[in-house]
Formats: sequence, C-alpha cells, structure tokens
Amino acid sequence: MRKQIKHLENMSEFVGLSVKGGVTNAPIINPYLTKTRKKPILSVEDYVKGILDGNISVLSQAVTLIESSLPAHQKLAHCILEKCLSFAGNSVRLGITGVPGAGKSTFIEVLGMYLVSQKGKKLAVLAIDPSSERTKGSILGDKTRMEELSASRNAFIRPSPASGSLGGVARKTRETIVLCEAAGFDTVIVETVGVGQSETAVHSMVDFFLLIQLAGTGDELQGIKRGIMEMADGIVINKADGENIEKSRLAQNLFKNALHLFPYPQSQWTAEVLLASAIEKTGISQVWNMVEKYIDFVIANGYFQNNRNEQSKYWMYETIDSQIKDRFYNNINIKKLLKQVEQDVLTHKISSFAAAHKLLDKYFCEEGYEID
Amino acid sequence: MRKQIKHLENMSEFVGLSVKGGVTNAPIINPYLTKTRKKPILSVEDYVKGILDGNISVLSQAVTLIESSLPAHQKLAHCILEKCLSFAGNSVRLGITGVPGAGKSTFIEVLGMYLVSQKGKKLAVLAIDPSSERTKGSILGDKTRMEELSASRNAFIRPSPASGSLGGVARKTRETIVLCEAAGFDTVIVETVGVGQSETAVHSMVDFFLLIQLAGTGDELQGIKRGIMEMADGIVINKADGENIEKSRLAQNLFKNALHLFPYPQSQWTAEVLLASAIEKTGISQVWNMVEKYIDFVIANGYFQNNRNEQSKYWMYETIDSQIKDRFYNNINIKKLLKQVEQDVLTHKISSFAAAHKLLDKYFCEEGYEID
Repeated sequence: MRKQIKHLENMSEFVGLSVKGGVTNAPIINPYLTKTRKKPILSVEDYVKGILDGNISVLSQAVTLIESSLPAHQKLAHCILEKCLSFAGNSVRLGITGVPGAGKSTFIEVLGMYLVSQKGKKLAVLAIDPSSERTKGSILGDKTRMEELSASRNAFIRPSPASGSLGGVARKTRETIVLCEAAGFDTVIVETVGVGQSETAVHSMVDFFLLIQLAGTGDELQGIKRGIMEMADGIVINKADGENIEKSRLAQNLFKNALHLFPYPQSQWTAEVLLASAIEKTGISQVWNMVEKYIDFVIANGYFQNNRNEQSKYWMYETIDSQIKDRFYNNINIKKLLKQVEQDVLTHKISSFAAAHKLLDKYFCEEGYEID
Repeated sequence: MRKQIKHLENMSEFVGLSVKGGVTNAPIINPYLTKTRKKPILSVEDYVKGILDGNISVLSQAVTLIESSLPAHQKLAHCILEKCLSFAGNSVRLGITGVPGAGKSTFIEVLGMYLVSQKGKKLAVLAIDPSSERTKGSILGDKTRMEELSASRNAFIRPSPASGSLGGVARKTRETIVLCEAAGFDTVIVETVGVGQSETAVHSMVDFFLLIQLAGTGDELQGIKRGIMEMADGIVINKADGENIEKSRLAQNLFKNALHLFPYPQSQWTAEVLLASAIEKTGISQVWNMVEKYIDFVIANGYFQNNRNEQSKYWMYETIDSQIKDRFYNNINIKKLLKQVEQDVLTHKISSFAAAHKLLDKYFCEEGYEID
C-alpha cells in the first residue's frame, strides 16, 4: 500500500497532479524542482567547496535547498549561506522589469549572450515572479525562451521560486544571489514582471534597475505603475526596429521629459533612456555601457557601498517585520477572530482601534488596553 | 516642600520648562494642553452627551483624553470613542498638504471663513505634524494664524498632538475626527506639512486630498516628494495674485501636464489644478466647488464608501502592525542585541537573514530556525 502511494506520488509529479499535497503542495511539472524531494547527500562542507569551485550542479542543488520548505533543508541552506557570505558581493547586480510583452526574456537572452561571449562575463539570471504558478508557462518559459543563453557554460539561469509570499520569494532570490556570487558569477540579472510589489523587492537587492518599455500610442506613461519609473536607473525602449523606430524615438523623448519631473535620486545619477532591439540585436552594447558607467559613477561617489549597506539592513528588518506579522496572523486565535472583527469594523460596530486592540489582547493574552 | 514642588511645576509649565519631566514630559507652553494634568471629572455618559450636544468645551476635553498617554485617560477616551462611533461619519473630510511657506494656514483660514460664514458649515480643523515640538511655533501658530476662524462659533481648531510616532499621532487625529463628527461638525480639514510620511497618513483618513503649491521658477515639480502629487485629488496654486499671476498660470499648465503622466486613480476622478489667492480671497469658492463636485462624483460611482471602508481596514491593520513591531523593538533583549547584530550585517559577519533570525529566536525564545 505504501509502495502504491509512493508510486502514485511519482506518477502525479510527472503529470502535474498531487495525491497528498493539495494547495500547500502544488503540482510539480518543472523537472528542475523535483530535486527538492531527494535527500541532500552532501555535507555543508561539500556544498561550500562545490560552490566555491564553481560547480554548477552543486550550486543548483544548494539553491534548491534554499527554495525548499523542509526545515532540515532550510537549516542546511542557511549553514551553506553563512559560509559562502564572505566570498560573495563581487558582482554587478542588475534588476530588469517591464510589463508582459515588452520582450524581457528575449532582451535578457541577447544581453546575456553579449555579456558571456563578448565581455567574458559569468552571468546568473534569476527571477522573481510571485504571481507565477508552476503549471503556468512563465517558470519553464524562461529556460525555453533563453535557449542559446541556457546552453552557455558561463550562464546559470534559475526560474522564480515557485511558492510563498512575495517577501519569502524575494528573500530566497536574495540568498541565491549570494551563492551565485560565491560560485564566481560576476554579473547577476534579477528579472521581474511589472506587476504587484515585486519591483520594490528587486530594487532592494540590485545595484542598477532597468525598466524595459515599448513605444506605443503615446500612452506609455499611463501604463507605468506608481513609483516604477522613479526607481529606474535606466530605461530601454525595446523593439525599436523597422516601422517602430520613429515611434520609439518619440517615446524616448517622452520618457526623458517625464524623468525630469521626478526628484533627483540619492545616487545623483541621471537616468538614461536608450533604444534597443533584442530581435535585431541593436543597442545592446550601449545598454551595458550605461550600466558600467553607472557603476563607476556610484562607486566613485560612495553611493554603491552605501546602497548595499542599506539593502542589507532593509532585508534584516524586512525579515523581522514579516516574520512577526506572519506569526500574528497565523495564530489560531487570531485566524478565528479576524474576519468577524473586520466585519464589525466595516459595519461600524467597533472602531478600527478597538478592533485592533481586541485582536492584540487576544494574541498577547494580557491585562487590557496598552496603547502606544 | 510638596507644595513648593507643585508650585515649581506650575511655574515650569508657564515658562516652558519641566522640573520632573525630562524627555518624556516635554515642557508645556501650550495652554490648551494643560488640561491633561487635570483629573477628568465627567463620566463616559457625560462626555458622550456633551459631545452629542455639540458642547465644544466637553469635546475639547475628550480630545485631550485621546491625546493623553495616561492609561486611565486612554481607557476613558476609548469608551467615549466607541459610544460616539455610530454618530460619526457624516462629514466631508478634506486633507490639505503643502511645503512650509505655501501659505497653508492662511489658505485654511480663508477657506474656513468662507465655509462657516457663506456655506453655513460647521468646521473642525485638525493637524498632523509629527515633527513639531511644543516649544516651536507650529502648535500655537495655527490658532494665532487662524485668528478670525478660531473666534468663530462654528469652527473648532485643534493643533497636532504633540508627541509620539507618526502612526500614534495619526491614530489620535483619526479618533478626533470621530468625536468632531459626533459633535455635529460636517466638515473636517486635516492639515499636514509636506514632510515625511505624514501625507500618507492623512491621505488614509480623508475623502479629498488637496495639495497647495506655489508658482516659482519652473522647478515646482522637482520639489514635490514622491507620490504626493499622485495622491492629490486637486492642486491649488496659492498666492496667484499681483505679479505672480502669469507665473501661476504657467505652473497651472505644468501641473496639469504632469498629472497626465500618472495612472488613472481608483476613484476615476481627474485631478484639477486651480489658482487661488488666500490674501486676496480669490479662487476660494472654486476650490470648494471642486471638492463638492468630487464628493458627488465618488458617491455616485461608489468609490466614496468603498474608500472609507478601505481606510477603516487600513487603520485596523496599521494599528496591529505597528503595535506588534513596537513590542518587538522595545523588548529589552532585542534592544540590547540590535545594534551589534546590525553591525555584524554591515561588516558581512552574518547575512541579513541569519541576523533577523538571531533576533527573532531571542524574542520568541524558541527552539530554532523557523522560516516562512
């Protein structure tokens, strides 16, 4: 019987269904992720040695440990992480965002090939896409869309961790950056899709934030989510080819003018707006020149290190804040009460503050009101 | 001897010094706040009755209870608040922000006088200014700068609560809105200075958010903090008088164009940009017409109620989140560890995540790692 279930489990993994799992155990059709089911066979030292040797297979397994939700895997992952930490930090971290359809994957493929073949870089491509489900195309899509790059010896492409909150997913990606750097990758691209809060998360772990945009009907600016453009250190108008060139030049001016409306960033860097065509492979070297110019600029004025320090602090506090919130909202008593109390607030039975304190009192099991 | 100390305390309140207080007890020179030292003599029922009768003196005392940090006062304040809740909600809540020097106080004085004398409104003016200290001008300033308005029977002017975090100050102001509405005020203005995060707090408690701006050198847009303009339902270029008129018209166009760059707000309302002069009392009725037009518009499309519901939920969650964070960071063990751990992160001795978990483990005194 046990064997039969085991067999069913294996089957179900294959066809993308889950026998036992339900919601918490999403169906797995991504072959790169099946390794989470295997017992790790290496010791911490073996993992660390493998990573420092640049062994991609070991790196890949270590990333799988980071992504795993099993406590044993997590402990192991964190031991590896702490040991790799002092070997990390030596890469240029580039965040890339843009709405679906802007051609991010193709752009990254072409930029990536330029970096590995012409600039001699070792490139890791990671992704944060909390909206993705394993059954949707986006996870496997990256590897298939980046066919040439994924075949390169000097590139490591890793899809988005497939489950968890944005904070959790982002944290795992940030840990993966550390491992990639320790494995000798000198350039890291973190890709995210232009939805939700994922840009802020990516912005908080990269040195340069690139927005990929399309020329369109003149409405380009309308479509940009609040704050995204202000975070951009550079904008690339992609698909600036053929009939699109004239429109793309107009969009370039539009974006240049719009950038002037924003306050000067802390980095003191003036964001640039470039044209490129991933399909025709034009404008790619200019994009990389911009990134290098920026890095030189912010290293010289001290912003580079300052920003990385702020990011480290940010992730410490972000982790703390999200953990204490998770504990609160996952508390069994709070879960029971929350919906009713929220309803009472909406129907004006109690104030927002009384509602909050009702829940807080329940959680901390204490004597009564304690405000500020 | 006791008498002497008592005398000294009274003296010190008068001259703005504190004998016993030190940092936690800031010197009091604002006579409106000395009531916190008096024992409340009314019962909850008396307070509620007084407020519902529109008794300004009782209302004022109840607000003082809300602002007090004494647990007994807080309990009393919250009992009053809960009983007033079902009588509240019937006002137009207007948030006003703008950089210092934009002429907010004068503008509010003139708009306020227009509302009480020509539109028959009962107006409460509250303020959120977490940066203010009692000894600085801003607290007493409002009442002196709004001399005419503060003498009006139909106006209630209350300076910013003088101490506490922004979250705490904002919460107290939101509670004060409830009491003012229960006391029959049909219009509430919440003023804030254009610094820090206070705009977000004000935006989360008002129906209409007004940005007061000055025409200048064409650099107006540069000076606006991220996100402020996107929150605005209307912009007023103040001091559009005399030689300034031409410049103000240019600024008006600049702002109108800039507003087009932002995505359409949830309210579906297109923000307007108006000219006014508080000194010459021009453009004031147009500003109010805009607010009324907006209110009609969002009541009709359902956004008004929807927004208020979202705000109620926001404040419940905001209160919870800030309280659980306060408890964590005020924990004696955490306080001892935090600086050292932060330093270890900055010197790459441990990762941000290990640092966070070191602190979390200390706080929850539990067995070990527990991630996500």
